[in-house]
Amino acid sequence: MTKKKKDIDYKTYLQLPALLAAQKPISAAHDEMLFVIVHQTYELWFKQVLFEVARVQKIFARRTLADADLRIVSEALARVDAVLKHLVRQVDLLETMTPLDFLDFRHVFRSASGFQSMQFRALEISLGLRAEDRVSYDGRAYASYLSEEDRKTVSKLEKGETLFEQVDKWLARTPFVSMGKFDFWKAYGRAVAEMLDADRKTAAADKTLSKAARDMALARLDNMQKQFDALFDGKTHKQSAWRLSHEAVKAALFIMLYRDQPVLQAPFKILSALMDIDETMTLWRFRHAQMVQRMLGMKMGSGGSSGHDYLVETTQKNRIFKDFFALSTFMIPRSGLPQLPPDVQKKMGFRYDGGE
Amino acid sequence: MTKKKKDIDYKTYLQLPALLAAQKPISAAHDEMLFVIVHQTYELWFKQVLFEVARVQKIFARRTLADADLRIVSEALARVDAVLKHLVRQVDLLETMTPLDFLDFRHVFRSASGFQSMQFRALEISLGLRAEDRVSYDGRAYASYLSEEDRKTVSKLEKGETLFEQVDKWLARTPFVSMGKFDFWKAYGRAVAEMLDADRKTAAADKTLSKAARDMALARLDNMQKQFDALFDGKTHKQSAWRLSHEAVKAALFIMLYRDQPVLQAPFKILSALMDIDETMTLWRFRHAQMVQRMLGMKMGSGGSSGHDYLVETTQKNRIFKDFFALSTFMIPRSGLPQLPPDVQKKMGFRYDGGE
Amino acid sequence: MTKKKKDIDYKTYLQLPALLAAQKPISAAHDEMLFVIVHQTYELWFKQVLFEVARVQKIFARRTLADADLRIVSEALARVDAVLKHLVRQVDLLETMTPLDFLDFRHVFRSASGFQSMQFRALEISLGLRAEDRVSYDGRAYASYLSEEDRKTVSKLEKGETLFEQVDKWLARTPFVSMGKFDFWKAYGRAVAEMLDADRKTAAADKTLSKAARDMALARLDNMQKQFDALFDGKTHKQSAWRLSHEAVKAALFIMLYRDQPVLQAPFKILSALMDIDETMTLWRFRHAQMVQRMLGMKMGSGGSSGHDYLVETTQKNRIFKDFFALSTFMIPRSGLPQLPPDVQKKMGFRYDGGE
Amino acid sequence: MTKKKKDIDYKTYLQLPALLAAQKPISAAHDEMLFVIVHQTYELWFKQVLFEVARVQKIFARRTLADADLRIVSEALARVDAVLKHLVRQVDLLETMTPLDFLDFRHVFRSASGFQSMQFRALEISLGLRAEDRVSYDGRAYASYLSEEDRKTVSKLEKGETLFEQVDKWLARTPFVSMGKFDFWKAYGRAVAEMLDADRKTAAADKTLSKAARDMALARLDNMQKQFDALFDGKTHKQSAWRLSHEAVKAALFIMLYRDQPVLQAPFKILSALMDIDETMTLWRFRHAQMVQRMLGMKMGSGGSSGHDYLVETTQKNRIFKDFFALSTFMIPRSGLPQLPPDVQKKMGFRYDGGE
Repeated sequence: MTKKKKDIDYKTYLQLPALLAAQKPISAAHDEMLFVIVHQTYELWFKQVLFEVARVQKIFARRTLADADLRIVSEALARVDAVLKHLVRQVDLLETMTPLDFLDFRHVFRSASGFQSMQFRALEISLGLRAEDRVSYDGRAYASYLSEEDRKTVSKLEKGETLFEQVDKWLARTPFVSMGKFDFWKAYGRAVAEMLDADRKTAAADKTLSKAARDMALARLDNMQKQFDALFDGKTHKQSAWRLSHEAVKAALFIMLYRDQPVLQAPFKILSALMDIDETMTLWRFRHAQMVQRMLGMKMGSGGSSGHDYLVETTQKNRIFKDFFALSTFMIPRSGLPQLPPDVQKKMGFRYDGGE
Repeated sequence: MTKKKKDIDYKTYLQLPALLAAQKPISAAHDEMLFVIVHQTYELWFKQVLFEVARVQKIFARRTLADADLRIVSEALARVDAVLKHLVRQVDLLETMTPLDFLDFRHVFRSASGFQSMQFRALEISLGLRAEDRVSYDGRAYASYLSEEDRKTVSKLEKGETLFEQVDKWLARTPFVSMGKFDFWKAYGRAVAEMLDADRKTAAADKTLSKAARDMALARLDNMQKQFDALFDGKTHKQSAWRLSHEAVKAALFIMLYRDQPVLQAPFKILSALMDIDETMTLWRFRHAQMVQRMLGMKMGSGGSSGHDYLVETTQKNRIFKDFFALSTFMIPRSGLPQLPPDVQKKMGFRYDGGE
Repeated sequence: MTKKKKDIDYKTYLQLPALLAAQKPISAAHDEMLFVIVHQTYELWFKQVLFEVARVQKIFARRTLADADLRIVSEALARVDAVLKHLVRQVDLLETMTPLDFLDFRHVFRSASGFQSMQFRALEISLGLRAEDRVSYDGRAYASYLSEEDRKTVSKLEKGETLFEQVDKWLARTPFVSMGKFDFWKAYGRAVAEMLDADRKTAAADKTLSKAARDMALARLDNMQKQFDALFDGKTHKQSAWRLSHEAVKAALFIMLYRDQPVLQAPFKILSALMDIDETMTLWRFRHAQMVQRMLGMKMGSGGSSGHDYLVETTQKNRIFKDFFALSTFMIPRSGLPQLPPDVQKKMGFRYDGGE
Repeated sequence: MTKKKKDIDYKTYLQLPALLAAQKPISAAHDEMLFVIVHQTYELWFKQVLFEVARVQKIFARRTLADADLRIVSEALARVDAVLKHLVRQVDLLETMTPLDFLDFRHVFRSASGFQSMQFRALEISLGLRAEDRVSYDGRAYASYLSEEDRKTVSKLEKGETLFEQVDKWLARTPFVSMGKFDFWKAYGRAVAEMLDADRKTAAADKTLSKAARDMALARLDNMQKQFDALFDGKTHKQSAWRLSHEAVKAALFIMLYRDQPVLQAPFKILSALMDIDETMTLWRFRHAQMVQRMLGMKMGSGGSSGHDYLVETTQKNRIFKDFFALSTFMIPRSGLPQLPPDVQKKMGFRYDGGE
């Protein structure tokens, strides 16, 4: 509004001549245009998503994270999820093409395949997907499908710090899990023990159950106790299935349980957004698997992939923020949660508020 | 599969270097990238939609329309609608930007505006929107916002045959509305008269109604009779509000009422798809109006438009296939429909079938 | 988990025998079942939405609103919006019914109409729709369509405090708009004046413009100054188009401009959610208008309504949180915003943070 | 319109007093209401879906299927799919509840679980899911989770004719696959052989390939030939993985390849709708699996189920119309398809058309 620029028109601003000249179907098959445009819009949106992730990573890379930035982080992540959800729905558009129509131009790309999408790989890596979390395909590393130049780019990305790692460090720094005399881990351990004890007594006294059922209930409670013991034990943590550090697990659980505390509301939003993104990327993989089965039946995917089965497997294995889902296992009902000491609670509030 | 081409990779096939270099935000505002990509994907999808409409128009342009082509027509139109619905949902993505964030770069386009989207104009015109159906904006013709080159293109398009006109002619050729001794218009006129007569008798004899209520009911029936008389009267048709020719109105109503006849199933699909497209384009205008109000409040739109009110008005006036919605007014319950004579019905069936 | 209850099965828990016995189509027309179930699920979701609104209203009714409650308020409002969006999409399901199929059972409800949905009226009123904001229909008050009992209920609701009023009071209490030496209104007035002055100078010096264009630009800036003057002037506020109190307008604008301050992040979420709800209810009205036109053409709606036009009009008039949209008109670019004094900014942060 | 009924109001018509009294949350937890209403609307929509499937089954149960009925069948199936897609999206609403909020009332249903939804079982069975297609859960038959009364109902349903079986028989009756001198199976076998021969020659002559690559390409073609041989061979069909009868496989492939022939357009729509339904039910299972993981982490599902893994497994195994997806494997490009003889093609057209 203040600085005037040279006038520009819509077409020039959006670079439409270049953009609308970039559709080059190879065959004369009508539906190849749809195929091209579906994938081009995917790539444009991947660019947007990477742009948002880069913003978030830049904020997390700062030594200290200003509270004012947390809104930006959670809104950026929410936008990433909104775009990904849009891309999931876009699979429906590709499915307006029938397998027979696909056959009309399937021969044009011999080895070309979505496997070669550099931007999608960059997204996975930036978020934190590790090489070892990937389902291998045809026994080959995913990077072997990329051009040499792209391989260098992903290799560099893989050496950089990922969003997962940044979030892990940020969580591990959360101040309130241990403050003054308050130690969340200990307090929570006691609360869990009390809850399980009470459950054990209830089960043991439950006359409506047969002895076998009672024994099963008690065994289940013992098993839960063991799971919790493992959770609390920092020494065995590294050997466990957790990818998050022990400190980050603790903080994430703390945030989820005490999310209504003013200072935790924004961090809770961020954890929820990361779970949304993980869920939506997984759904994208699944819809993609379904689409491949519909288009190709049991044939090989384009680029030689056995497509459907591979993609279904990735929905279970190629996960990034799975640990946050696992935390639900370790929540106890609100009524049993340890009370926060008043001084801790006060520190979690706003400065303007309270008796200052 | 049979002819082998030179190998090509994903990036080259999709022209990614050109595509992903075409985002040129002018400001340093973070959200300008979203703005660019939202509009670029709109334009890519407009290209797809125009591509489908062109296919349909080419088929309708043939002297005779093969029955085998009707599936292609209705699937292409269904795809147009599916893409447009996707674009309506995409407005949600733009709304992840707040008005304050928009202000950070709103100054970069002085007169640039969606008003200058040549492809959107081409879509409206190809489908059949006439200059006189358009809400005028700032008292200027929409074409005055276009570059000289684009103005020539739309002017040429406006002189060509639109989908609306093609559909009108195609409908007017429908053979079954008058075949042998069967004249749909006359038979339907009799059925309507019978229905209204019966309704009049019922109303007149309804003791539960007050005299005033009875008189109102009778007046309403008289009014319906007049509307139907006007429908049937070919002489006054040209002066009426219908845009469809009289013959086309007749055929469209026939198709809607007897859509289960094998030969009418595909035409019915086509009419339904045209209504879907009209409805979805209207919804697109409305969501766009909402978005403009949210972003700009009561300010002028970018490009100087008063945006919101103009867009709301277009939802009612810039309509193309409105006549097909009006037909619902002239349907009578199935129980009162004239029976088709057996010989007509037989001709509407498949050759393999029946006692031949 | 701790207290054991008598075992219960799925069917009993969900009251399925009663629920699934409550579909009583009157005619033998196949599609009447769809009509019944579409409307029953609408009503079930209205119940849910009312349940969430009641929770929010109960929180706002407290003398002081705990910061811990703001997350609950914004999540409840977000859920309301999510449900309403689901109901908008549900219109698509009703449109799988054709006008001809609707005619098969349209006669069964003579005066019954969605106009009689008590829960929808309760929702409108609880959110804050006033009788005077409503488009009148057939010249009759909406309540005249309700049963006597329902009329009493809505009349009582109309006398109670609505969410709009609660939000207005809550906003008016916002402490930071005037704190110590900082007066947001004055500081903002100065910033606006500076921006407009600079714009005037730029326009006056712009040699690329004709005299006429320059005069128009200057007139536009004068007009903006007048709009802002009216905004700042408490005395004329009551005569203005604003429904929000002057204090609430000020606070809402403050929140929107300084939303990244920790203490304003939750209030900003709440204002955004209210705008989302307003937008989605408006969209619901519009989709409903489209559906009515498709089903009935130009006929009267069921219950005697002229349906379509009435519903389109409600999308512009029956609005509740329109004022928040108007605020976009009064935002200036972030670069021109007054800086918050350090002591004010400090008070808007968390207690744990900073140099304490 | 013609027969007047006693006046009825909206509330009575929709049985709102009963409907809105049927929500009986057990706990005081706020989110239990959402849980109840999500599941009640699921059940209402299941009723609608069963109602549409019953209509379709009644039509298929007739000795001869009128061509006029095919539109009804395909529209009913399309509606089933539209409703199911709505239910998939509805999972998002349940996910507005957090795991911690769920814990507040999870204890109220000890063994109650969606496993006990009689209507969902009825839907699976009516469509054609066989007991042997089901993933077993905890080693128990799904029916063991039902009440005795419900067990009887499903057992009866399982003995009845399912939609899958009806479709199989209907397909097997398709007249055109073998008509006069035309035998689709033989003609197609020849076309496949020609295509594979040409591919073999191309591969053998391809100098750009290494010997190993050439050998692999040839081996792949040999393998395809074997798959096709197995497809054509009626004798081994019963031992194959196909669930469809050999005649039905043949007809379904014929319909998919020659879908533009007027007489095949409606059958093609029906096959496509069945695939849509299969895909959407599978997606429903997957979204349900994701939701369970989010809510429960690695805990047991309500009703004791290990939920997530079980549900993921059902997406691959509990499939009904999978065979139609497998057909894509056996399509060859349109350019290689056998031409239909003119007399067969004529019989597939409409009676009104052509040289009669």
